[in-house]
Amino acid sequence: MSAELEEIHEECGIFGVWGHPDAARLTYFGLHALQHRGQEGAGIVANDNGKLTGHRGLGLLTQVFPTEESITSLRGSAAMGHVRYATAGSGGLDNIQPFIFRFHDGDMALCHNGNLTNCQSLRRRLEDEGAIFHSNSDTEVLMHLIRRSVRPTFLDRLKEAVNTVHGGFAYLIMTEHELVGTLDPNGFRPLSLGRMTNGAYVLASETCALDVVGATLVRDIRPGEIVIINDNGYRITHYTSRTQLSICSMEFIYFARPDSNIYGVNVHSARKRMGTRLAKEAPVDADMVIGVPNSSLSAASGYAEALNLPNEMGLIKNQYVARTFIQPTQELREQGVKMKLSAVRSVVQGKRVAVVDDSIVRGTTSRRIVCMLKEAGAAEVHMRISSPPLKYPCFYGIDISTTQELIAATKSVDEIRDFIGADSLAFLSLDGLIDSIGLRENAPYEGLCVSYFNGDYPTALDDYEQDFLASLSEQDRIRLPQFAADHSEYEGNEYRNPSVH
Amino acid sequence: MSAELEEIHEECGIFGVWGHPDAARLTYFGLHALQHRGQEGAGIVANDNGKLTGHRGLGLLTQVFPTEESITSLRGSAAMGHVRYATAGSGGLDNIQPFIFRFHDGDMALCHNGNLTNCQSLRRRLEDEGAIFHSNSDTEVLMHLIRRSVRPTFLDRLKEAVNTVHGGFAYLIMTEHELVGTLDPNGFRPLSLGRMTNGAYVLASETCALDVVGATLVRDIRPGEIVIINDNGYRITHYTSRTQLSICSMEFIYFARPDSNIYGVNVHSARKRMGTRLAKEAPVDADMVIGVPNSSLSAASGYAEALNLPNEMGLIKNQYVARTFIQPTQELREQGVKMKLSAVRSVVQGKRVAVVDDSIVRGTTSRRIVCMLKEAGAAEVHMRISSPPLKYPCFYGIDISTTQELIAATKSVDEIRDFIGADSLAFLSLDGLIDSIGLRENAPYEGLCVSYFNGDYPTALDDYEQDFLASLSEQDRIRLPQFAADHSEYEGNEYRNPSVH
Amino acid sequence: MSAELEEIHEECGIFGVWGHPDAARLTYFGLHALQHRGQEGAGIVANDNGKLTGHRGLGLLTQVFPTEESITSLRGSAAMGHVRYATAGSGGLDNIQPFIFRFHDGDMALCHNGNLTNCQSLRRRLEDEGAIFHSNSDTEVLMHLIRRSVRPTFLDRLKEAVNTVHGGFAYLIMTEHELVGTLDPNGFRPLSLGRMTNGAYVLASETCALDVVGATLVRDIRPGEIVIINDNGYRITHYTSRTQLSICSMEFIYFARPDSNIYGVNVHSARKRMGTRLAKEAPVDADMVIGVPNSSLSAASGYAEALNLPNEMGLIKNQYVARTFIQPTQELREQGVKMKLSAVRSVVQGKRVAVVDDSIVRGTTSRRIVCMLKEAGAAEVHMRISSPPLKYPCFYGIDISTTQELIAATKSVDEIRDFIGADSLAFLSLDGLIDSIGLRENAPYEGLCVSYFNGDYPTALDDYEQDFLASLSEQDRIRLPQFAADHSEYEGNEYRNPSVH
Amino acid sequence: MSAELEEIHEECGIFGVWGHPDAARLTYFGLHALQHRGQEGAGIVANDNGKLTGHRGLGLLTQVFPTEESITSLRGSAAMGHVRYATAGSGGLDNIQPFIFRFHDGDMALCHNGNLTNCQSLRRRLEDEGAIFHSNSDTEVLMHLIRRSVRPTFLDRLKEAVNTVHGGFAYLIMTEHELVGTLDPNGFRPLSLGRMTNGAYVLASETCALDVVGATLVRDIRPGEIVIINDNGYRITHYTSRTQLSICSMEFIYFARPDSNIYGVNVHSARKRMGTRLAKEAPVDADMVIGVPNSSLSAASGYAEALNLPNEMGLIKNQYVARTFIQPTQELREQGVKMKLSAVRSVVQGKRVAVVDDSIVRGTTSRRIVCMLKEAGAAEVHMRISSPPLKYPCFYGIDISTTQELIAATKSVDEIRDFIGADSLAFLSLDGLIDSIGLRENAPYEGLCVSYFNGDYPTALDDYEQDFLASLSEQDRIRLPQFAADHSEYEGNEYRNPSVH
Repeated sequence: MSAELEEIHEECGIFGVWGHPDAARLTYFGLHALQHRGQEGAGIVANDNGKLTGHRGLGLLTQVFPTEESITSLRGSAAMGHVRYATAGSGGLDNIQPFIFRFHDGDMALCHNGNLTNCQSLRRRLEDEGAIFHSNSDTEVLMHLIRRSVRPTFLDRLKEAVNTVHGGFAYLIMTEHELVGTLDPNGFRPLSLGRMTNGAYVLASETCALDVVGATLVRDIRPGEIVIINDNGYRITHYTSRTQLSICSMEFIYFARPDSNIYGVNVHSARKRMGTRLAKEAPVDADMVIGVPNSSLSAASGYAEALNLPNEMGLIKNQYVARTFIQPTQELREQGVKMKLSAVRSVVQGKRVAVVDDSIVRGTTSRRIVCMLKEAGAAEVHMRISSPPLKYPCFYGIDISTTQELIAATKSVDEIRDFIGADSLAFLSLDGLIDSIGLRENAPYEGLCVSYFNGDYPTALDDYEQDFLASLSEQDRIRLPQFAADHSEYEGNEYRNPSVH
Repeated sequence: MSAELEEIHEECGIFGVWGHPDAARLTYFGLHALQHRGQEGAGIVANDNGKLTGHRGLGLLTQVFPTEESITSLRGSAAMGHVRYATAGSGGLDNIQPFIFRFHDGDMALCHNGNLTNCQSLRRRLEDEGAIFHSNSDTEVLMHLIRRSVRPTFLDRLKEAVNTVHGGFAYLIMTEHELVGTLDPNGFRPLSLGRMTNGAYVLASETCALDVVGATLVRDIRPGEIVIINDNGYRITHYTSRTQLSICSMEFIYFARPDSNIYGVNVHSARKRMGTRLAKEAPVDADMVIGVPNSSLSAASGYAEALNLPNEMGLIKNQYVARTFIQPTQELREQGVKMKLSAVRSVVQGKRVAVVDDSIVRGTTSRRIVCMLKEAGAAEVHMRISSPPLKYPCFYGIDISTTQELIAATKSVDEIRDFIGADSLAFLSLDGLIDSIGLRENAPYEGLCVSYFNGDYPTALDDYEQDFLASLSEQDRIRLPQFAADHSEYEGNEYRNPSVH
Repeated sequence: MSAELEEIHEECGIFGVWGHPDAARLTYFGLHALQHRGQEGAGIVANDNGKLTGHRGLGLLTQVFPTEESITSLRGSAAMGHVRYATAGSGGLDNIQPFIFRFHDGDMALCHNGNLTNCQSLRRRLEDEGAIFHSNSDTEVLMHLIRRSVRPTFLDRLKEAVNTVHGGFAYLIMTEHELVGTLDPNGFRPLSLGRMTNGAYVLASETCALDVVGATLVRDIRPGEIVIINDNGYRITHYTSRTQLSICSMEFIYFARPDSNIYGVNVHSARKRMGTRLAKEAPVDADMVIGVPNSSLSAASGYAEALNLPNEMGLIKNQYVARTFIQPTQELREQGVKMKLSAVRSVVQGKRVAVVDDSIVRGTTSRRIVCMLKEAGAAEVHMRISSPPLKYPCFYGIDISTTQELIAATKSVDEIRDFIGADSLAFLSLDGLIDSIGLRENAPYEGLCVSYFNGDYPTALDDYEQDFLASLSEQDRIRLPQFAADHSEYEGNEYRNPSVH
Repeated sequence: MSAELEEIHEECGIFGVWGHPDAARLTYFGLHALQHRGQEGAGIVANDNGKLTGHRGLGLLTQVFPTEESITSLRGSAAMGHVRYATAGSGGLDNIQPFIFRFHDGDMALCHNGNLTNCQSLRRRLEDEGAIFHSNSDTEVLMHLIRRSVRPTFLDRLKEAVNTVHGGFAYLIMTEHELVGTLDPNGFRPLSLGRMTNGAYVLASETCALDVVGATLVRDIRPGEIVIINDNGYRITHYTSRTQLSICSMEFIYFARPDSNIYGVNVHSARKRMGTRLAKEAPVDADMVIGVPNSSLSAASGYAEALNLPNEMGLIKNQYVARTFIQPTQELREQGVKMKLSAVRSVVQGKRVAVVDDSIVRGTTSRRIVCMLKEAGAAEVHMRISSPPLKYPCFYGIDISTTQELIAATKSVDEIRDFIGADSLAFLSLDGLIDSIGLRENAPYEGLCVSYFNGDYPTALDDYEQDFLASLSEQDRIRLPQFAADHSEYEGNEYRNPSVH
């Protein structure tokens, strides 16, 4: 991990399977491959002929499911699960998914990866209508909308509900008879369908989870689609035709596991190309290249190879660091006790090093890295970032919610370089990023969401709009696309649909 | 990890600190940096003005010390700890160290990294004299010897005891008044002394643990030395002058963390040089180089850079795999469910790949890796091993105890290549290894133990000798050095001392 | 415990406090005193200036709150908690209370002791209107009703809601500004208000919980009342005037702790009087009296004293039996392994014993007790039950839900005596029970609910009516009061109110 | 429990079984019945054809063995276990038994109930000879002695060893081929042999554990005996003929479960007789009798019946109190928060109550009880104690180690009455106690140890002698039997044997 060492959080990973006698165990392994997407909590729900049972808990999967019994007690031939990164203040067991709901006409379970832009207003409206909420999460909102819909079938009701929620979402829904997945009209978050050799179907946030359970990719779920899996196989339909791919570019830059493919693009290869391109855009005269482990290693190798420089392990991350509750005291921190990252003195001493990292958020970690390397004797430290400066918040599921936190929102590249103490600093250009990923979709930015870099949000911002506009400089307010204007109406639905450019 | 994915185990990591108000917490962080040396159990003993209290448990450090309270309850200004890899059959809490002993003249604690060659005979002799053993480990033997010595001072008794035990060992001993570390006459296992800014002294298996707690290296403890740390500082003495450095070469190849330095040699750099040398000795015509994560990544980058080939992430390891109790059933395994390692199809498909791994033990993992890559579409798979073939067991603390397990003991390189299904296979030469590490000590093999490669054991084998000789081929028996002949006597001690070449 | 050794379950105990700096800890102790009312799960919610945080878990209080930290993390000057007995099939963390709800206008928490008669129909109606349910419990229904009410104040909405739910209930509700308790119009379940020396107010299911926290009784909450506690003190209002006390007689017979007082009647003393009366109604010629521990010991001492017989400990219960997961196998059971209850051979051998138990449910435990005593050498075993035969289910919060389970529903006293193998059997008369409790309220049965004995339910049975009528014999159907006819309407409310006799 | 509410602690309960396929589970149930003898830790060792595996932990059995797996993993047809009360300062896992020892000639396990009088000197001597100790407990000493004996057979070595240790002990030893139990020459601690229907043999501290597993008593093990159980059945031998029964009278008064029989005397019945005798010796003019739960209830019923007074439940103990880590703060204590014991106001208000308790240790609990009852409105409180005043420490396994703690050591009965604030106070006479228990052995005090009452210790005090003499008043020193003088020698053994009167 990096993204300036975990200052940016993906909210979740989701996984579901239908048609396998060992469904809960498969879900465990699938979630295991998605553990990097959330380490604060996990849960699995199993479907035993319509009866849903679940277990959720705080911590890593290995902590939530510590014994064989914890898995074998979840019986049934279908299951789905969730790993969660709890954002500040929203912790606690009540927010750990999947949620199970008990109705007279059958149990349902639900889990979610993403963030809704109109959650607050929907929630307020639902509360005004008497709805009650157990959690702070966006997830319950969808179930309320489904259950309040008067349309005849579950699929109709689901369609209405997902037309009502805006923003970024990948939902999995388990009913008595089916496992359903659906994606927002921009496809901000990835979701892939796979097939196991025994005929079971699998849905997962990333293809690495398909690989781990031995499933082969059927295809990626696309914006606005609904996939329904039941005992007869799968079928894909759509709830809106007003779609336009805007997959989160941070998935390629930082979140996704390097062995995952998103819309056919391998993440490691994309990162390596970012490094190669960065070498062209911002070469350096150095003795070696160092990648910030783990997520920047691919970009670093691309950068090093392009410049024909040695790629060295000058920074090392403790691989066992996850979920420790023992922390250094402030006093120990001042004495140099560090948990996560160490500089390797004997590698960097007296050397001019180019450090490749995937992003800079607040700049404090970059400053720490530069400082650490200089203390370890590096003669020069040149920072190279394999993505453009992060200037704007994300409203679709990444935890960069305020502009104030982002150093690049208020400082120029030179100012950032001074702040972090590097001898030089360069970022990959936006074009360089888009070319490197190479999604080649017929859509703005080739199908990528790059709004955190340029403020060009592919949807209306709904509940976030006012605060966001207020946070902008005058200059930005003029320059930015008028995303707030083009609200269009969806057929037969009283709520606004996602905007389309 | 690799060493053919953990088929070889280091037995332990040890860490101690004297003179810091937060000693147990520092020990926790030190052990954290040594967690790669043992994941089956851990323990910490703290010294509160002579009163020793401890806590031990099975699992990772984060499992054994789950709460702040678990650390703060270990009061005192000195502490030491241990992480353990339990070898088969020897599991269970009773073997988790440090051990605390309660005597009328004060408490003592003891922990150990290594393996004694004369443990069985010493233990038998001690038992015949009435000694009782709570554990299967070698560790208790030393305490029995210390307590049975009639020499006047604790240091004298310790000296007699460590002259009596043979093999590989690094011991830490905590008494009321001091923290003591000592190394066998060949220095098979590493042990380093560091100093914190507040004046506290630290002993650790690897320098990475010094770095993590902000300590600077004072110096490596050398063969036959005893370091005594107390409130007056440290002092180093020796219990024998018949020493000769034979540090375990597997520490450089596989065990140690890449940011550690052993006798001044950085581990990552040594591995990279192994890769570079391997490229010279056994180049390949391939499209890319792939390192087996994590321990072979340095060698792979050296190999790739030397051949000017792209270094790709074609194999990926789940970083969260540690200590899960949920395992795939046999049926799921056959359906392709895998926990640890995945091949990245989109990286390797249609490509000729050179895979760099650090060693081959039984060959089964290598075969699995080759198979995985070919299934993922690799056109050719060339296996390159950054160390010589493992042919002989280790008796000094690495868990390769029988020749039968080692595929290179009975098969030629060509036969191994056929067994693992690779298109080609090459190992680094022994000279290449020694040159790459570059220890430059004035001793056989420049101060390295390379006995698992060539059968040249630097000490008598004691209790293991008979079985080992029986396991050898006639040819080997003639060829191998007559280690069994040159037992010499130590001054004033009735037991054999370590042999010296 | 007895009630034929826990075959009957109370559903819950509740406790709340307002105005104490250590509110969560007090709640822990209060719940501790109520642990006998539910051992399957527990939870506490604390109110820190309007912010509610909670922790819930399965097991005993000591398991759910294992560390100081688990209590100290629940900050705030008000708190409330719940201990739960999970009825079959409804287990799982999702049903453990208190539930916390998050609204834009503030958090609320809710917990409940009792059972609603119209829960299914309300739930169905609410679901039809789009409500979603996380749990199987009755508890969420009330919150839905509160939030759907359009009345102006929270108190108005609460009043409407509790007029809508029927059956037996004691609710505690925590809002930002107050702790509220309310009781059904028949007061089936007990709830008492106490005051601490520091001025804090306490609500608890039983007075023993007041005693434990050093609170003095202010008064029992009465049917149809709502008590509101806030920083200004407490005030009691009512939501209906159509009330009539029908407190559950099983509270006196079995559930409540002997040191609790309910409407001024001490439970131990009432039980003792039951024993005394039973001695008059059904004396016995025996050598000793034995009480079935723990709940029948008071009645046994009354029985023994009245007959001037020795009261002996001929049956013993393991006091540590709670919540073990290790159970005897069937084979061990057949070999005589028993966990809970043992007969004391040396006490009963050769003796004619009168066993006093509080009730007979299915008869299997009584049969086991008789058998055990005879195997231990008792010459005669005379069973005396300190309550009338249980013939009808309870719909107000006790887990006797089907007539079929009750041996007295289908068998005469003689037939039961034969089934359990006793030499004689007698039950306390209904009049005897009512006199012994001595509630003296101006209401049918002096204010007791005795419907499980005589089928005279004090309210309409709502959702249970049809099934219940179908389960009755023709004779019973004619004989029983026409509880189903007299549904009256509540002022200004569209739902039926509790029937009044 | 009482003994002034747990101020006196038994150290342990032991249980072993040989010849049952489900041995570890049986041991679990056996220990369950002995849980009252120790709640601080527990352990079980199972013997699978000579291979011993064990599990130990802190807390109640249900905490140490929380899952089925924790029991099923202990395979084998023999097992033994231990529950422990950790005395102050000796806590920690290292002292939890049974201990397992690993020898070249087979594993052994050992557990112990009792206290050795010459442990310190033996331990010192063994340490001087090089022995090392992992624990503070007396238990390891025996294993050292066994292993240091040069006698030919294990039984010979054991005999020598148990002739060497002095004081009170019941040991269980598991070897590859047998389960062995042995008792000190005075039989201070109870140990009974039982037989299961399948032919398995069982050894347990109390007969209640035999009952729980469906075993029938074969006979009590007697002083100086060794019982050896193996696949051929059992056989009893003795290691000394100089024996004299002095079973701990506190077993009858307080420790043992009321359903246990010791040397044929039922504990409940003995207690009841104590109450009856106390009524004769010290009647009272009162309205009711109250027993302090749980251990004084039998005596209270005897007292009440003899005086024809009602026996009421005026004090109640929380049955779920065991092992909570959440404690009232001092502030809460002052506000009246209490965990264990409550007075029942409505029972005692305005009444003259006679409280029967089994003993007074420091007097603080008695004072609290009197105070509690008066606060609850009792008009008079008359304290009656069903045993004589505790004046002297116990050296054989009960945790009353210093005279200073005992209020009766320094205060007269009148002074104690004033201290506890009772209206009157009386103790049972020593003769009354001995008559009530009615052991009728041909030995001093009919075979009871009553030394805590009269200072007449049945053995030499060894390591404790000097301190004990120093603690005595001049008067006492003259009056007490000269136990220190009569050390006799055992045949063929260099150590002192237990003194015989």
